[in-house]
Amino acid sequence: MGRYVVGVDFGTLSGRAVVVDVADGAERGSAVHAYRHGVITERLPGGPALPHGWALQDPADHVEVLRTAVPAAVRAAGIDPAEVVGVGLDATSCTVLPTRADGTPLAELPEFRARPHAWPKLWKHHSAQRQADRINALAAERGEPWLARYGGRVSAEWQLAKALEVLEEDPQVFRRADRWVETADWLVRRLCGNPTRNASAAGFKGLRQDGRYPAADFLAALHPDLPGLLTKIDDGPLLPPAARAGGLTAEAAGWTGLPAGIAVAAGAIDAHVTAAAARSVAPGRMLAVLGTSTCLIMNADTCHEVPGVCGVVEGGVTAGRWGYEAGQSGVGDIFAWYVDSALPASYAAEAARRGMPVQDLLDTLAADQPVGGHGLLALDWHSGNRSVLMDHELSGVLVGLTLATRPEEIWRALLEATAFGARTVVEAFEAAGVPVDELTAAGGLTANRLLLRIYADVLRRPLHVLDAAHPAALGAAIHAAVAAGAYPDVESASAAMGASHRETWHPDPARAAAYDELYADYQTLHDHFGRGGTNILHRLQARRHHSHRTP
Amino acid sequence: MGRYVVGVDFGTLSGRAVVVDVADGAERGSAVHAYRHGVITERLPGGPALPHGWALQDPADHVEVLRTAVPAAVRAAGIDPAEVVGVGLDATSCTVLPTRADGTPLAELPEFRARPHAWPKLWKHHSAQRQADRINALAAERGEPWLARYGGRVSAEWQLAKALEVLEEDPQVFRRADRWVETADWLVRRLCGNPTRNASAAGFKGLRQDGRYPAADFLAALHPDLPGLLTKIDDGPLLPPAARAGGLTAEAAGWTGLPAGIAVAAGAIDAHVTAAAARSVAPGRMLAVLGTSTCLIMNADTCHEVPGVCGVVEGGVTAGRWGYEAGQSGVGDIFAWYVDSALPASYAAEAARRGMPVQDLLDTLAADQPVGGHGLLALDWHSGNRSVLMDHELSGVLVGLTLATRPEEIWRALLEATAFGARTVVEAFEAAGVPVDELTAAGGLTANRLLLRIYADVLRRPLHVLDAAHPAALGAAIHAAVAAGAYPDVESASAAMGASHRETWHPDPARAAAYDELYADYQTLHDHFGRGGTNILHRLQARRHHSHRTP
Repeated sequence: MGRYVVGVDFGTLSGRAVVVDVADGAERGSAVHAYRHGVITERLPGGPALPHGWALQDPADHVEVLRTAVPAAVRAAGIDPAEVVGVGLDATSCTVLPTRADGTPLAELPEFRARPHAWPKLWKHHSAQRQADRINALAAERGEPWLARYGGRVSAEWQLAKALEVLEEDPQVFRRADRWVETADWLVRRLCGNPTRNASAAGFKGLRQDGRYPAADFLAALHPDLPGLLTKIDDGPLLPPAARAGGLTAEAAGWTGLPAGIAVAAGAIDAHVTAAAARSVAPGRMLAVLGTSTCLIMNADTCHEVPGVCGVVEGGVTAGRWGYEAGQSGVGDIFAWYVDSALPASYAAEAARRGMPVQDLLDTLAADQPVGGHGLLALDWHSGNRSVLMDHELSGVLVGLTLATRPEEIWRALLEATAFGARTVVEAFEAAGVPVDELTAAGGLTANRLLLRIYADVLRRPLHVLDAAHPAALGAAIHAAVAAGAYPDVESASAAMGASHRETWHPDPARAAAYDELYADYQTLHDHFGRGGTNILHRLQARRHHSHRTP
Repeated sequence: MGRYVVGVDFGTLSGRAVVVDVADGAERGSAVHAYRHGVITERLPGGPALPHGWALQDPADHVEVLRTAVPAAVRAAGIDPAEVVGVGLDATSCTVLPTRADGTPLAELPEFRARPHAWPKLWKHHSAQRQADRINALAAERGEPWLARYGGRVSAEWQLAKALEVLEEDPQVFRRADRWVETADWLVRRLCGNPTRNASAAGFKGLRQDGRYPAADFLAALHPDLPGLLTKIDDGPLLPPAARAGGLTAEAAGWTGLPAGIAVAAGAIDAHVTAAAARSVAPGRMLAVLGTSTCLIMNADTCHEVPGVCGVVEGGVTAGRWGYEAGQSGVGDIFAWYVDSALPASYAAEAARRGMPVQDLLDTLAADQPVGGHGLLALDWHSGNRSVLMDHELSGVLVGLTLATRPEEIWRALLEATAFGARTVVEAFEAAGVPVDELTAAGGLTANRLLLRIYADVLRRPLHVLDAAHPAALGAAIHAAVAAGAYPDVESASAAMGASHRETWHPDPARAAAYDELYADYQTLHDHFGRGGTNILHRLQARRHHSHRTP
């Protein structure tokens, strides 16, 4: 038996590969490759402009990660590639694309290259809210049993709403798509040649519950041609997390430099494999992956239908337990938007003078202000709301601005808003009878110490911080180790290979008490703007869409 | 009879003087002098830090305008100073200071120099809201007859709230202040030696109605020592607009280079003299002075008590009519805050590259977007709300933010918010039976063409734009001409000397219709946050004050 596995994590802007020791999970080497086209929001490469809310990716950018980051990670590790026994991968989700039966992306066919709906839709492609609204209304009206598994609302980000959008706006693309496939599954096929489905995405993003997708007559009531989706999404075996999807093909061995025939693990969702990396797969242990968006993952032994929570799926995180997922659709994205769009030149200059990133300058300036001292309150809905409102026509709100309001105060209010959003989700879990006993944070935003302090204070509980440079890629490697037979299941692999805590933040009682007051106001604003107190945000979005609609 | 008059306008950041032809109002020369200390908000010069919401000025800065800008304007005019027959001045209001009986500002006495309450409080000093709240509650409870003349609420910006704040927070300053005097009246005394009161400020800012100030027992119910204010504010004769306050003293002639003995007009409020400059003194003609804040001025022949409007005062704008004043406490201030605090470096660089002010770049980028295309809506309360809510504990709100929101979109939403605020005031006038037949804009913001277009569209009426470089100073000069006896009254002087319209903006029907929808949403937000739908803004301000309170 060889000594190493490779994990590959396909993120929003880049992919990264790690080489990991099968025995203890120690990282031996890693490499990152930024996607050439990043997130495509304004116009197709060499093609037409895109409407508001669109977010696409180029499938070739993903393959490039296999060709560059994997061999680079092996080189960095200084190991003999022959000692690698398995490869696993995860991707963002629901990031979904139409392909031909042989797996060729429609976007790579010359006749479809200039048609936006032929391209992979990134998780944060948010223009299918109208379709999601109709799906929700019809499911509620018909009393579809699966609806409650998604907190009572399905998302515009998921497979069905995105597929219905394609069908209605470019039916030819829908017709020519033999498959409607998650990016992770499409990439697994590129590695092992087999079309497979990962049960996690099928459940969390494809509405598969109790062994069935939504029924054909339900789909037909949305659009007469929509039942055709069932054959497109159910092609290939459905694999539980960390199952072996096949052996590495000679072609993929050529790209990656790994031995042909080694185990390729089933596709997986980034935050879900991170739970394995964080040793958070036991019931009651919640993992918060704080990044561009935030994903909250937890296992339990029982199925509770949590209002507003994205999903509960049997075997969705690890085989044999009920996996729960919730999330906040904009977190790091909001902070990046602030820095790009609202940080004044004087602050950029001061950060340069001090030789620090502007985010660090803002944190430094904001850190010592007492809770509530800025007089601000924000709703973190700049990218809509995933949990617990599941509404991507919502938008961000900022109240309490004065002529004395300083940039670091707005910055801190935005950090706090995402913490309040996280507390809203945790409270929804606990109110539904799913206790959260332990909370571990992972993801890029754990570099921000002010953010961690605020989360511990706002959430009123210890916040453990995962000590892993590439947690999702480590999780994918753990799945690879299971697929290669080195461990019998994810639980045991996680215990052996998962990372430890770098540190733990404990809430400060005085700050936590002050945040309770602000959180009460957050809840008031949240319900007013998000639960029907006013429909202003929807009307504003409708006007925005109307003026941006392409002919 | 000589041929010229001089008008001096004391603004928020600078003072300016104009030399004007008595016959036709033509400007012969002008000069501007920026106050050395500007607006003092952070700490006293060489003294202690100031709490949140404070805004002070240095009286010496005002005198410096008389010594520099007036002679400079005369030099620029190239006239013989002996041909000047009168001088008039206006100032912001309520900008009020404590002085000794001889007019010496307490702030200039060494023993008071380091005490913040000894300094002149600028109009936008906003920390006396708690005092204003108590004044309003007590006046409502007692059914004080004057309350309705101020739309049912008096302002934290006015004489009484500011005086009560001094009494409660630094009683020694209150005791040692023989007078509590408007800056304009204090400056008139510097010019002519006589203590006088202008009826306009006494009515609009001092609560003087039907010949009386609020009664001593009313004041005593607020604080046992407050009746002492009556002697402090009622010292010297009460003069109608443009009355002669006295002759220029030898000392002031030395400062200004003007002939000793020439007429000095009574003090006046900046926006009110501008009505004379705009020929807007006939009933039904509303003047909107668009600047740091916006002041809306109108005359009528009858007294209507307009809910939420700042004041109706007999003889308050011109003798013999009922003068109305309403206003928006933050307009240009909000735009300046945005540019200073939220405009990204990339935009500053692009404006520099194009060689234009950043405001022009933002206007250029925002101009072509369809109404509602940005999906944003703002409440223009960053400096509180003067009309129609009269509440300086309110704060700004911005809703509809997305990750795609661009700076020029926020900029335009802020411009629009102030237009919606103006429409709110105009509709309050008309609903109370005071028709607005004509609307003329003056002030620094009339340089912004996008703003003017938006105002015409939102207000759904032609917007005339005054053609005067220094409209308030011209108005002060018109008052000087009356005080010197060149005209019998302000109406006739205004007709002869007032400026004409530079241009008129007509509403575009399609944009105006689209703005009607946005305005309806503005009203919804306005009433929710400002009229008790939620008290969140007050709670946020209370927390801000609590954390900024000095020991």
